Amino acid sequence: MTIKLYCFGESGNAYKAALALELSGLDWEPEFVDFFGGAARTPEFRELNVMGEAPVLVDGDLTLTQSGVMQMYITEKTGKFGGATKAEEREVMRWMFWDNHKLSSQTGMLRFLMNFLPEDKRPAEVIAFTQGRLKAAYTTLNTHLEGRDWIVGDGLTNADLSCCGYLFYPEPFGFERKDWPNIDRWLGNIEHTPGWKHPYDLMPGSPADRA
Amino acid sequence: MTIKLYCFGESGNAYKAALALELSGLDWEPEFVDFFGGAARTPEFRELNVMGEAPVLVDGDLTLTQSGVMQMYITEKTGKFGGATKAEEREVMRWMFWDNHKLSSQTGMLRFLMNFLPEDKRPAEVIAFTQGRLKAAYTTLNTHLEGRDWIVGDGLTNADLSCCGYLFYPEPFGFERKDWPNIDRWLGNIEHTPGWKHPYDLMPGSPADRA
Repeated sequence: MTIKLYCFGESGNAYKAALALELSGLDWEPEFVDFFGGAARTPEFRELNVMGEAPVLVDGDLTLTQSGVMQMYITEKTGKFGGATKAEEREVMRWMFWDNHKLSSQTGMLRFLMNFLPEDKRPAEVIAFTQGRLKAAYTTLNTHLEGRDWIVGDGLTNADLSCCGYLFYPEPFGFERKDWPNIDRWLGNIEHTPGWKHPYDLMPGSPADRA
Repeated sequence: MTIKLYCFGESGNAYKAALALELSGLDWEPEFVDFFGGAARTPEFRELNVMGEAPVLVDGDLTLTQSGVMQMYITEKTGKFGGATKAEEREVMRWMFWDNHKLSSQTGMLRFLMNFLPEDKRPAEVIAFTQGRLKAAYTTLNTHLEGRDWIVGDGLTNADLSCCGYLFYPEPFGFERKDWPNIDRWLGNIEHTPGWKHPYDLMPGSPADRA
């Protein structure tokens, strides 16, 4: 049975699940959600996910939402990306929660405000404030990655797949890889993982389609 | 061995772990972190937690950070709050991630901006914007709780313990229980759980101490 992932290219949260699926070797296919056309706000979609968010993963009778839950499910099915020991498992979860709390939640919103809102609707104070908070988050990640190739242990885990969610996108949101050398090197390690794809190559939909 | 939780009363994230510890029946004690006095920003604390955040849980040789990881650990040790079936387990994790992403991350910040910053430093546009985003989150939770006593299944789980993190605090941040009848009823269910305590009664430190 092919796993279906309801997603769209601009969603870094969807990318976390899509990249985990792709690199795990599971059989999956993307199903385009026209988020910018309002598809996630319809009653039908709310029925699928009261949270009104993509991604949604459907595997037979099972429907999952929240990328973190999908990542845990992929680990359960394949044994991959969850950490090699109990201590690593906890450390992976720790960075997944931190990412949801402090990193992707803010990069996702900021990128939206700075790129996908009409120019006259972009809230300058909110943008500046969020950029400040994100600098603190980048500092935390960059510090942790000093002397490490991966966030946890000796290889790619859900911690990496979660934290990188928004960091490959080309649209400006105040993040420049050159300013964060350890993050830059770590993103390079992810890019060099066999089978890696950029979000706009892995999922349908991109700003180019709407240009 | 008594579990030690580094925490302070104003932290809803610490409250999630403290309340889980208290209601689980585990032997624990709080250790005050003088967050407002800068204690979490010292090199010693960063050594304990590169994320520079409370809570930190220490159980013998084991040190955990991120409240979600602590909640999972308490479940592992006691069998409580994790959900009764595999499907419930996933549903619990789903709401924990959602809370970290969309609810507590924003209530925590907003309450800080509106109450713990000097009045002339409070960013009006950020406050209004965050209040708007939080209304969407309250709507999601209130809709989900229609006809339910608990977020997942028939009893208290980590989903409830996570989502309620900031919702008992008296300081204003634009959340009024009376505006959200299902949330209000559900918070009442939590308050009536034997052993429940308000954050300022469960952990050391409160605005009253600094008045």
